[in-house]
Amino acid sequence: MAGASMATRKYGRARIRALVTGFEPFGDDPRNPSVDAIRRLPRRLGTLDLAVRELPTVFDRSRDLLARAVADLAPDIVLCVGLAGGRAELSLERVAVNIDDAPIPDNAGFRPIDRAIVTGGPAAYFTTLPIKAAVAALRAAELPASISNSAGTYVCNHVFYELMHLVAIAEHSLCAGFLHVPYLPSQVSRHPGAPSMTLEEIVRGIQIVLSVTAARIAAGEGAIS
Amino acid sequence: MAGASMATRKYGRARIRALVTGFEPFGDDPRNPSVDAIRRLPRRLGTLDLAVRELPTVFDRSRDLLARAVADLAPDIVLCVGLAGGRAELSLERVAVNIDDAPIPDNAGFRPIDRAIVTGGPAAYFTTLPIKAAVAALRAAELPASISNSAGTYVCNHVFYELMHLVAIAEHSLCAGFLHVPYLPSQVSRHPGAPSMTLEEIVRGIQIVLSVTAARIAAGEGAIS
Amino acid sequence: MAGASMATRKYGRARIRALVTGFEPFGDDPRNPSVDAIRRLPRRLGTLDLAVRELPTVFDRSRDLLARAVADLAPDIVLCVGLAGGRAELSLERVAVNIDDAPIPDNAGFRPIDRAIVTGGPAAYFTTLPIKAAVAALRAAELPASISNSAGTYVCNHVFYELMHLVAIAEHSLCAGFLHVPYLPSQVSRHPGAPSMTLEEIVRGIQIVLSVTAARIAAGEGAIS
Amino acid sequence: MAGASMATRKYGRARIRALVTGFEPFGDDPRNPSVDAIRRLPRRLGTLDLAVRELPTVFDRSRDLLARAVADLAPDIVLCVGLAGGRAELSLERVAVNIDDAPIPDNAGFRPIDRAIVTGGPAAYFTTLPIKAAVAALRAAELPASISNSAGTYVCNHVFYELMHLVAIAEHSLCAGFLHVPYLPSQVSRHPGAPSMTLEEIVRGIQIVLSVTAARIAAGEGAIS
Repeated sequence: MAGASMATRKYGRARIRALVTGFEPFGDDPRNPSVDAIRRLPRRLGTLDLAVRELPTVFDRSRDLLARAVADLAPDIVLCVGLAGGRAELSLERVAVNIDDAPIPDNAGFRPIDRAIVTGGPAAYFTTLPIKAAVAALRAAELPASISNSAGTYVCNHVFYELMHLVAIAEHSLCAGFLHVPYLPSQVSRHPGAPSMTLEEIVRGIQIVLSVTAARIAAGEGAIS
Repeated sequence: MAGASMATRKYGRARIRALVTGFEPFGDDPRNPSVDAIRRLPRRLGTLDLAVRELPTVFDRSRDLLARAVADLAPDIVLCVGLAGGRAELSLERVAVNIDDAPIPDNAGFRPIDRAIVTGGPAAYFTTLPIKAAVAALRAAELPASISNSAGTYVCNHVFYELMHLVAIAEHSLCAGFLHVPYLPSQVSRHPGAPSMTLEEIVRGIQIVLSVTAARIAAGEGAIS
Repeated sequence: MAGASMATRKYGRARIRALVTGFEPFGDDPRNPSVDAIRRLPRRLGTLDLAVRELPTVFDRSRDLLARAVADLAPDIVLCVGLAGGRAELSLERVAVNIDDAPIPDNAGFRPIDRAIVTGGPAAYFTTLPIKAAVAALRAAELPASISNSAGTYVCNHVFYELMHLVAIAEHSLCAGFLHVPYLPSQVSRHPGAPSMTLEEIVRGIQIVLSVTAARIAAGEGAIS
Repeated sequence: MAGASMATRKYGRARIRALVTGFEPFGDDPRNPSVDAIRRLPRRLGTLDLAVRELPTVFDRSRDLLARAVADLAPDIVLCVGLAGGRAELSLERVAVNIDDAPIPDNAGFRPIDRAIVTGGPAAYFTTLPIKAAVAALRAAELPASISNSAGTYVCNHVFYELMHLVAIAEHSLCAGFLHVPYLPSQVSRHPGAPSMTLEEIVRGIQIVLSVTAARIAAGEGAIS
């Protein structure tokens, strides 16, 4: 991971760099709000420069693409976004666990069961995003939000764990974490009775999470650890 | 109920009149999306002229205000809107039942238990709105929607039953029914994990229900019965 | 319907007759707790004589079998029992509505949509079972129970409506109603995360509903109306 | 921790020792199925000798009592059992996380927020129980069961983490983990609509988890790691 960003920032760089990722659709659902949302993010947001990347819903390849993007962009913030169909709120994940246990195959047809993501890696990593402050800011902005204690054991948790593993072995601290979002309203006709959230709310929510994190970095508090 | 509306329409009146009602907040929640939504409705919508009324969340008084509004306005369509906290979709109610059985007191402190709404009235009335067509149109417009088979036994069902009783004894047919809406996003901080819907979606949904109903009236199909 | 039962009872018959029905499995689930439960009921219970009948999960035929059983047995109490997968409690239905609107075909492949059950019949009938007293007795016996305001629009509601229609046109009053029961524990492996109830609890619950109803009849209070 | 048990077993001890804990009631609920269940366990179960301990629903004291019991008894298996009100199944927890974040105060009035359980401890520990085999055995015995990926951040997770921390620093391997159980049927009148499970099912489920684990130890497979 090219260590330029934090280092330069320490010597006066005014801009903070954020990488935001979303996932391709998976299963038999033709849409995934996470990728729709990141495509609508602005390139600049206050003191933030934003870069976005689309990840495949594939265990192994998603990790490689994420690692390359982090190496290329040397971001100060990485926020991975994924769909959690059935949840009603924006949920900021607290902890990534070192296990793949897939209820359905990924988009490449691979279905790992009870497999360590990083052999010999720690059982879990905590996010380094200020998740409590972010939830408070989201609610103040009238967006439903909460902390989640499980990102599951599918591709979302996989990417989240790989991300936090990159952070753990990086030379500088990095604010990194995972945001799960509900179905879009248009998806609910396939999932009757399920809660949903508009794309506008999701996009606005992502920006709030990024802004709260940027403000913390600007205040010199850096990553939670 | 002044019978002018349908009659005049038959002789060439181009405009269709709709009455839409919402409820004041109840319990310890300071907001009610139904009243917020009706305040944002336009006065004219295609061939429709809209009038709105706010009803108190009080068993007996809500009925009187509704009956007066129907008598004064002689509408072709009456849509009563209420909050169903915990539901995720716009739900069009199919049937109103002749019973008050309140889990909490109304805003006047009254809590009827197992009381007939109209003594000697039928056990239930079906809505005369085209609810299946409305649900299809809502879903086509990417709004979560479904049919509901119970409006509960609180003030919402009470008003719905009284409305359909007015329709039953009226001289002309009337498209009338009840729409339950989810919490607003801003209410969810008081109800963590509950589904929500934006005010914009709710307002748009009400307009779609009204337009679908107006189109049916214009096509000479009138009320479902 | 042979009117013997109530009449004889008025002249001193000590025994009260109850008919309890359950449904065959439907959809792709090989079991249905309602039929398993009625097979375990005793023939005599306090002052009650019990007869049981299995009904097919078929709209039209279920009604014919029910009507014949009521005519043959001249019961004082009729309790129809059905499965409501996903509910957690024994739920006593308050109201049957005059509509078939099937989300899936019945076991004969028939799927009525928005069809009146009895053409020209009332929109709904209320149960004549003492449902509030029954819920109180079930809870006192440590069984989860509640009132439900919708039996759906599938075969369960169909049979319930036909039952109450038989009661309405009968010459004597009859305590009749519908009890929905949860999945059995053994069914939950096909429906992960769904609530369940043991067969023993369900059988015990049915007996409590019957006993509470019998006590009311013995006290001369008869059917709720 | 007195290391006798495993060591002796290696040299031919036929009996396997299990410690099972439950919690006192907490919040305003007078019952806790976990403690009711452990009181009904037999002292011997196949090749197992069982000891039970009641833990207070108090963050710090629960840990001390657990550590003392483990030191005194030198068990081969430790299963902590707790209530997860609202869940429908027996849920075997996969992972304990190093954080206390209490939504309500414990029974001593203490409410830690975002506090590490063990300062400098790993972010999480995986259970060393054979949870997949146990879920399969529970389902085969017609008991609703599943794996859970979060034990929350209250006293249950606290005790689970402390348990796995004891295991991590112990000299010998130990099959240890946490089982969350649903409400009892008698508790549901306070929580209408919530799923429940009978005490008999819970007691039977605990015995199955213990037996599956004992069989694995007897087969020389020991703790999962």
